[in-house]
Amino acid sequence: MTLMYQAPLRDMCFVIDEWIDAASWWPEVPDWADLDRDTAQQVLEEAARFVEERIAPLNATGDLEGCRFEAGAVRMPAGFRESYAAYVEAGWPTFSLDTECGGQGLPQLLDVALQEMLAGANHAWLMSPGLTHGAVACLQAHGSEDIKRELLPHVASGVWLTTMCITEPQAGSDLALIRTRATPAPQNGGYFIDGSKIFISGGAHDLTENIVHLVLARLPDAAPGTKGLSLFVVPEWLEREGGGRERNGVYCEGIEKKLGLKGSPTCSMRFERAVGRLVGEPGRGLACLFVMMNAARLQVAMQGLGHAHTAWQRAHTYALERVQMRAVSTPPGVSDEPGRAAPIAWHPAIRRALMELRAIAEGERAIGYWTAHWLDVAARHSDALAREEAGQLASLLTPVAKAFFTANGFAAASNALQIFGGYGYVHEYGIEQTLRDSRVAMIYEGTNEIQAIDLLVRKVLPDASTGLGILLRHIRAEARLCGAGETRVRAVGLRLTELADDVERVTYAIKEHQATDPETAYRVADDYLVMFGWMLLSFAWARTLRIATNVDSSDPFYAEKCETAYFFFDYPLAAFAYRRALVEAGLSARLPYIAS
Amino acid sequence: MTLMYQAPLRDMCFVIDEWIDAASWWPEVPDWADLDRDTAQQVLEEAARFVEERIAPLNATGDLEGCRFEAGAVRMPAGFRESYAAYVEAGWPTFSLDTECGGQGLPQLLDVALQEMLAGANHAWLMSPGLTHGAVACLQAHGSEDIKRELLPHVASGVWLTTMCITEPQAGSDLALIRTRATPAPQNGGYFIDGSKIFISGGAHDLTENIVHLVLARLPDAAPGTKGLSLFVVPEWLEREGGGRERNGVYCEGIEKKLGLKGSPTCSMRFERAVGRLVGEPGRGLACLFVMMNAARLQVAMQGLGHAHTAWQRAHTYALERVQMRAVSTPPGVSDEPGRAAPIAWHPAIRRALMELRAIAEGERAIGYWTAHWLDVAARHSDALAREEAGQLASLLTPVAKAFFTANGFAAASNALQIFGGYGYVHEYGIEQTLRDSRVAMIYEGTNEIQAIDLLVRKVLPDASTGLGILLRHIRAEARLCGAGETRVRAVGLRLTELADDVERVTYAIKEHQATDPETAYRVADDYLVMFGWMLLSFAWARTLRIATNVDSSDPFYAEKCETAYFFFDYPLAAFAYRRALVEAGLSARLPYIAS
Repeated sequence: MTLMYQAPLRDMCFVIDEWIDAASWWPEVPDWADLDRDTAQQVLEEAARFVEERIAPLNATGDLEGCRFEAGAVRMPAGFRESYAAYVEAGWPTFSLDTECGGQGLPQLLDVALQEMLAGANHAWLMSPGLTHGAVACLQAHGSEDIKRELLPHVASGVWLTTMCITEPQAGSDLALIRTRATPAPQNGGYFIDGSKIFISGGAHDLTENIVHLVLARLPDAAPGTKGLSLFVVPEWLEREGGGRERNGVYCEGIEKKLGLKGSPTCSMRFERAVGRLVGEPGRGLACLFVMMNAARLQVAMQGLGHAHTAWQRAHTYALERVQMRAVSTPPGVSDEPGRAAPIAWHPAIRRALMELRAIAEGERAIGYWTAHWLDVAARHSDALAREEAGQLASLLTPVAKAFFTANGFAAASNALQIFGGYGYVHEYGIEQTLRDSRVAMIYEGTNEIQAIDLLVRKVLPDASTGLGILLRHIRAEARLCGAGETRVRAVGLRLTELADDVERVTYAIKEHQATDPETAYRVADDYLVMFGWMLLSFAWARTLRIATNVDSSDPFYAEKCETAYFFFDYPLAAFAYRRALVEAGLSARLPYIAS
Repeated sequence: MTLMYQAPLRDMCFVIDEWIDAASWWPEVPDWADLDRDTAQQVLEEAARFVEERIAPLNATGDLEGCRFEAGAVRMPAGFRESYAAYVEAGWPTFSLDTECGGQGLPQLLDVALQEMLAGANHAWLMSPGLTHGAVACLQAHGSEDIKRELLPHVASGVWLTTMCITEPQAGSDLALIRTRATPAPQNGGYFIDGSKIFISGGAHDLTENIVHLVLARLPDAAPGTKGLSLFVVPEWLEREGGGRERNGVYCEGIEKKLGLKGSPTCSMRFERAVGRLVGEPGRGLACLFVMMNAARLQVAMQGLGHAHTAWQRAHTYALERVQMRAVSTPPGVSDEPGRAAPIAWHPAIRRALMELRAIAEGERAIGYWTAHWLDVAARHSDALAREEAGQLASLLTPVAKAFFTANGFAAASNALQIFGGYGYVHEYGIEQTLRDSRVAMIYEGTNEIQAIDLLVRKVLPDASTGLGILLRHIRAEARLCGAGETRVRAVGLRLTELADDVERVTYAIKEHQATDPETAYRVADDYLVMFGWMLLSFAWARTLRIATNVDSSDPFYAEKCETAYFFFDYPLAAFAYRRALVEAGLSARLPYIAS
């Protein structure tokens, strides 16, 4: 029995409509004059139907069947080709793309909800179209007119899929070590690309008639390091002048046997006199990819959230049905039948685990969607300062969401698996697949350790007054609003103020130590990011509590939100002080090298 | 490239010889008059050679090939049959068995070292012989003379393998729900067993000519609940009087597709008029299995330790070889080459992760082996009080070791996997297999939640003066010894005293709340166990530090032990306060029920 994915539409709408209240701003944007809560909800309902009916059923089957590599080609699992065609047909790839490149121009805020659904339903399937959005943004910003005319429309519509060819065997986190070469090919104004790339998701497949590779390579006499990297667009098939097409020198040499994501081919690619075109300026390859990578990082955060939700949903359903052991205590109004085994959802250890799964998934939804909202504001607000601040916020929140959500997604899968007991370890209930699939998100698109350095070393320490300052303003404003509420809400407001003060204080302490010991920030970065994440979840639950307390409704949804918020501050938030203690330890405690 | 298992012989001998100093007691036991450090070391060296040469190479291949179920029979992966025959031939199954049943009568302390090696090298392979020891103890204590004469010798020598048939689809943690029936078969003085069992490790295989199943079932008119359970021994093949044999009514109906342990068949078994013999008294089935289950729990703890060691060893080897990114800082005496990428083992985040892997594996080794040592004392000491106290200690330590080590083993696998980056997610380096294989140990032989209840509700709360009191005496004695050392050792001694005081104080607080709110202990049990585990690791590292500081040796082994001890108290031990905070939260904070 596989428990089938159900999109958490009610909570998604709560976050968008009540927690963010996005619809009160949307009509200020010319393109969104007619966009309101009802329309947004309809879009999400349609997305949920598509995902639940077409994509979710392929999750377990895709995992079991996997991808097949035969004679240089990759065969995708049954149903992937048809469902991808339906996805393109229904216009989902163009959902949040600019109207000028054929998109529907809807908010990123709605797009991340779609991303969450796809990831929660079938992470492997999502891998194929996952890069379309970023590739379009990259080609639109940096592609030549030829590229925009000949390639972009096919990419934007989803008719051709894309890859990001960055990693090489010796160059993972360290892109300075990339060796793939690009040499000018004077006869066609293009370049020949030669080299090997590994871990290329969707490097070969049978979903589309062409695959457009974005490849980082070095031009002759390029500077060493990352400044010598340029970006090239290399289609698998080249259009011949006068019609017809010919195969480019791009070869898939094999696919990886992986822990999870078995429905997504991870390819080793060889480029051999492959014809490519330069994207952007020579030596600016990383800068061109930057937009794409940042978008990808928020998407990966949504994968963490999607897995957390799926883990919670599966474990919750199972725990209500599975009957085992006498109850130590019973829910209010329910009397125990002597000698009768109880649903395991009543047992304290399981309740605790379930509540934590829920508190994390729902808290992250608020923070993740809020980040996407700031991307919308950064792109569309009429006021330049508002755009600037929103951009800084989104840039600060993205690495936290990527690392914190993905680590929590994997932990959620493991904690949910535990609730299934022995049934969690076997394939049948699907939760072991969630464990396997979720693990990769802590590694790819920049390992979580890279995200932590991005947050602390690149974004917080250079100027804490910008991104962090803006964020703390928002958090303290929320704390003040809670301060005007009833007793328990006021207590939560005070707690939130303390957390913001703690983060600020710890940040300054790191900065101070950093001045004399430049290793400090690198020693504490991971714990700092996680501490930061717990502050964000506290913000999420404080605002949720305030809203839910103020709503005049008998809908049990709001009472459960209050229960979950109180639970969050009672239990899981203890992790904040733990991480703070680790950061403080790292300020001065030595960290040995082990030779042997 | 798979990094092949290497037994940590140096550290094993350190724990046995210096940390426990077992050899100073061994000669007091008549059977061990000649057992000394050198002999013990030779035994372990021989075990290591066997495990590294014969068992470790089958780990990846067994995982890839898996077990095959065909026509009611199970085919084991290539090499398993031959290596198991060599294991029996070399006498490893009888290693620590009583001499009276053909064993070599060596200490449990050496047996757990063998268990650790086998688990770290090839957990799936270990599953087959894993139950032999417990089955022998069970049949020796409770089997009839017939059973001892006809079955026990084959089981003890390892020529026949055994299973423990407990779980049924509706009866996992809750054995009261077991339905399998036993009806007297007057013609042969035995019983007919009918019912279905699931998750039976090694229920069918081609390693031995016979498989002896130990089956929990209900006699007619048995009491409801666990008091109605009796234990039966049910061989797959029955010896015919006058020679020859016939197939018993025991059928394997399929094997599970699991997350890991693919080289170990997890069988669904059907018993249909299967001829069995009663073991022990009717209605005392659980009591008869008790010895077996307790032995199994310490073994499972060793699996957690084995995985932690393997994770540490693999990640450490890889991190020294993998070159990526410029160094933020360099090891003492090593100068950075400008522009040159550094071994990732130099990067602070990786050093932190590596040190933590090491601190956990080595600390657990001391505690796990110490537990086995108390089993030896309980079984062999000449003084009854010493035996009694040792038994209480082992009984207290076992659930902590089982739950804490297995959770840490899985976490270690995941943390090590992260160090491999993308290479961690693919099969090649073996670490993703460690992740998959290690996860089951948190579930089977009593889930970790069951262990937590066993520790707190059954062992600590009823009488804290026995097991816990004895343990705290040992810990405080160590703290006093540290108090006589140099400054940093004294500080560690003080810290250890605080931890013992904290555990004592929290225990009394739980007991107090429990009087008015009987759910309290169940709400806090999991965090209590983990807090307890961190106290034990602190004990391990305090004693290690004291010994290493006092040794007059230029062997870098001792300097590294000191570094690791300081690291442990600086960083990972922060988890103790975190868990204490969670226990304290659970004393009074509500824990909602979620209905929807």
